[in-house]
Amino acid sequence: MPLNLQNEDSILRKIVDSFRSSQAARAGRSVSLGIGDDAALFRPKPGHETILTCDWFLEGTHFLRQKHPPEAVGWKCLARAVSDVAAMGAAPRCFLLSLALPETHTGQWLELFLGGLRRAAHKFQCALAGGDTTRRNEILINVTVVGEVRTGLAVPRSGAREGDLLYVSGTLGEAELGLQLVLREKSFASRKNSLLKIDLSDGLSSDLSRLCAASAVGALLEKSKIPKAQIPKVAFKHGHDPLQLALHGGDDYELLFTVRAQNAKLLPKIFKRVGLTAIGRITRGRKLLLLEEDGHVSQLVPRGWDPFREKL
Amino acid sequence: MPLNLQNEDSILRKIVDSFRSSQAARAGRSVSLGIGDDAALFRPKPGHETILTCDWFLEGTHFLRQKHPPEAVGWKCLARAVSDVAAMGAAPRCFLLSLALPETHTGQWLELFLGGLRRAAHKFQCALAGGDTTRRNEILINVTVVGEVRTGLAVPRSGAREGDLLYVSGTLGEAELGLQLVLREKSFASRKNSLLKIDLSDGLSSDLSRLCAASAVGALLEKSKIPKAQIPKVAFKHGHDPLQLALHGGDDYELLFTVRAQNAKLLPKIFKRVGLTAIGRITRGRKLLLLEEDGHVSQLVPRGWDPFREKL
Repeated sequence: MPLNLQNEDSILRKIVDSFRSSQAARAGRSVSLGIGDDAALFRPKPGHETILTCDWFLEGTHFLRQKHPPEAVGWKCLARAVSDVAAMGAAPRCFLLSLALPETHTGQWLELFLGGLRRAAHKFQCALAGGDTTRRNEILINVTVVGEVRTGLAVPRSGAREGDLLYVSGTLGEAELGLQLVLREKSFASRKNSLLKIDLSDGLSSDLSRLCAASAVGALLEKSKIPKAQIPKVAFKHGHDPLQLALHGGDDYELLFTVRAQNAKLLPKIFKRVGLTAIGRITRGRKLLLLEEDGHVSQLVPRGWDPFREKL
Repeated sequence: MPLNLQNEDSILRKIVDSFRSSQAARAGRSVSLGIGDDAALFRPKPGHETILTCDWFLEGTHFLRQKHPPEAVGWKCLARAVSDVAAMGAAPRCFLLSLALPETHTGQWLELFLGGLRRAAHKFQCALAGGDTTRRNEILINVTVVGEVRTGLAVPRSGAREGDLLYVSGTLGEAELGLQLVLREKSFASRKNSLLKIDLSDGLSSDLSRLCAASAVGALLEKSKIPKAQIPKVAFKHGHDPLQLALHGGDDYELLFTVRAQNAKLLPKIFKRVGLTAIGRITRGRKLLLLEEDGHVSQLVPRGWDPFREKL
C-alpha cells in the first residue's frame, strides 16, 4: 500500500530508527517489545520497585518554538521528567514519548528534536520504550519516565524532620534569567550559553513549600548561603536580582534535599563535579522563614512558577 | 500562605480528593506514594512483568469540547489507554493523568470529568497514581496506564502465524457512526445513546495492517462474517454503510486477535457478555484481502484513522 510520508506510522518509524542504533538502546535491556506494539514491557531488577512520573512539555508554556532550538527541546523534555525520578533517589530506566506535531515539523525539526532527545537518553541511560504520536497545530510533548529504586529506599517529600539540614545542588536562578533574557529577544538561545543549559523545577520557594507541607514542618533559609547564579552585567542593568532569581526562578533542575544533622559530615561538598550547599534547616513551625545577613528574619512567600497563576 | 483557588496545587488537591474515597483507590494496593510526590512507586506482583502505554486525548482531535460531555471525556481517556494494555493480555493496575485545562474549566467541567474518570478507574480496577497539571487554552489530556502480566505471557502483535483464525470482540463501526452523527449536529452526545459508548482504536483495516506487518503475514477477511453495528434508519439515509464503518471506522475499543486453528474450539462464542467472532484467517502473502459474498477477492486498503492523514 502506498504510504503518505507524513502519516503516523512513518513518524513512528522515524522515531524508532532514530533510537535503534543509539547507545541509549543498550540501556534498555530491561525493556522488551516497546515501540510499535500496543504497550511496552518493563522488568525491574530483583529487589527493586518501579517508579513512575510524567511531565508536560508544551509549546508556549514550557518552551518557545521560535526561540528554543529543537535539540534543546528534545534534551530538556526528557531531562525534566528524569529529574523527578532522581529527586526520589531512583535511577531512570526507560521512557514513553507522546508527541503532537504540525506536519511542517515532521522533517528537519523532528530530526533535530530526536537528536537532542537521543543525547539525553544516552546521558541518563534511559531507553525509549514506546509512545504515541498525533498531528496538532502546536507542538505538544508529554514524557513518562520509568525508573527503579531498591525496595523501601525511595526518598519521599514527607521525610523531612525538625533539625535536618537543607541542601541544594548546583547554583540557582540561571534558567529563569536565561528565559527572561530570551524573552527580551536577546536571542541567547542561539548561543551556546550556559544560562540556557538544562537543569528545583518550579523554583526554590515553591518546591520548599511543598516539601515542608508534605513533611508537616517549616524551614529557615539563610540568605547568605543560597548558591546564586553569576549573572552578566547586562542582566543587572535590566534590574535582575540574583537572590530573587535563585529563590523564585523555576526550571533549575537541581536537587533540594534534607540530611539528618548527624549525617551531614558524611556528605561531600562536591559530588560528581556538582556543588552541594547547606542553605538552612528544617524547623518545627510550619513557616518558611528567611534569615537576612543582619540577623533579621522575614517570612518567605512562595512565588515560584505555577502555570495556573502566571503566564509566560 | 493564601492560595489562589485556580493554582496548580489546588487543582492537584481537587484530583486527589476526587479519588481518595473511591473504590478505585482500593485497587491501588500495589501503588504507594503517588499523587503529590515527585513520582509514584509501583510493585508488580511476583512473577509478573510491568506493562506500559500512553495515549493522547486532545480536544479537537479526540473529542469535541462542545459536543462531548465531560464525564464521557473522563471515562474515555482512560478506557482508551486501558484497551492497549488489554490488547496485550495484561491487567491494568494504575495510571498517570496529565491534564492541561483553561481556568474556566477548573470548576464544574473538572468535577464532571473526574467523575467519569473515577467510574472508569473503578470499572477497570486501575488506580490514579500521579500526574501533571498545567494551564492551557485547549483541553489536553495524556494518560499513561501501567499494568501487569505474568512473565512471558504478554501477547505481542508479532505472534500471528499462517493459518491462525482472526477474531474480533463485539461489533464494529458504532463509534465512527456516532462521531459522524455528532458532527452533523444531531447532538447525539447529550442522549444516553449506545452509539457513543466507550469502545479496534484506529479502525479494523489499519490495525489489522499493523498486526500483519509486525507478524510478517497477510490476512483474508470474510466480508459476511464481520460483526457490523446496527445502524439507525436516519444513518442509512445519510449514506452511511455499515461495512465501511466496520472496516475503517476508528475508536471501537474492541479487541482484534488471532487463535491457532486447533485451539479455536476452546474459545467461547461469548465471553463476559461480549461476542467473539471469527472474521477470517492469517495468510502467508503479506496482503490484506477481502472475500466478498460472491467468492470474489479484492485487496483491502487500510483507511482507518490516522491523525497525520485526515482531519476530524
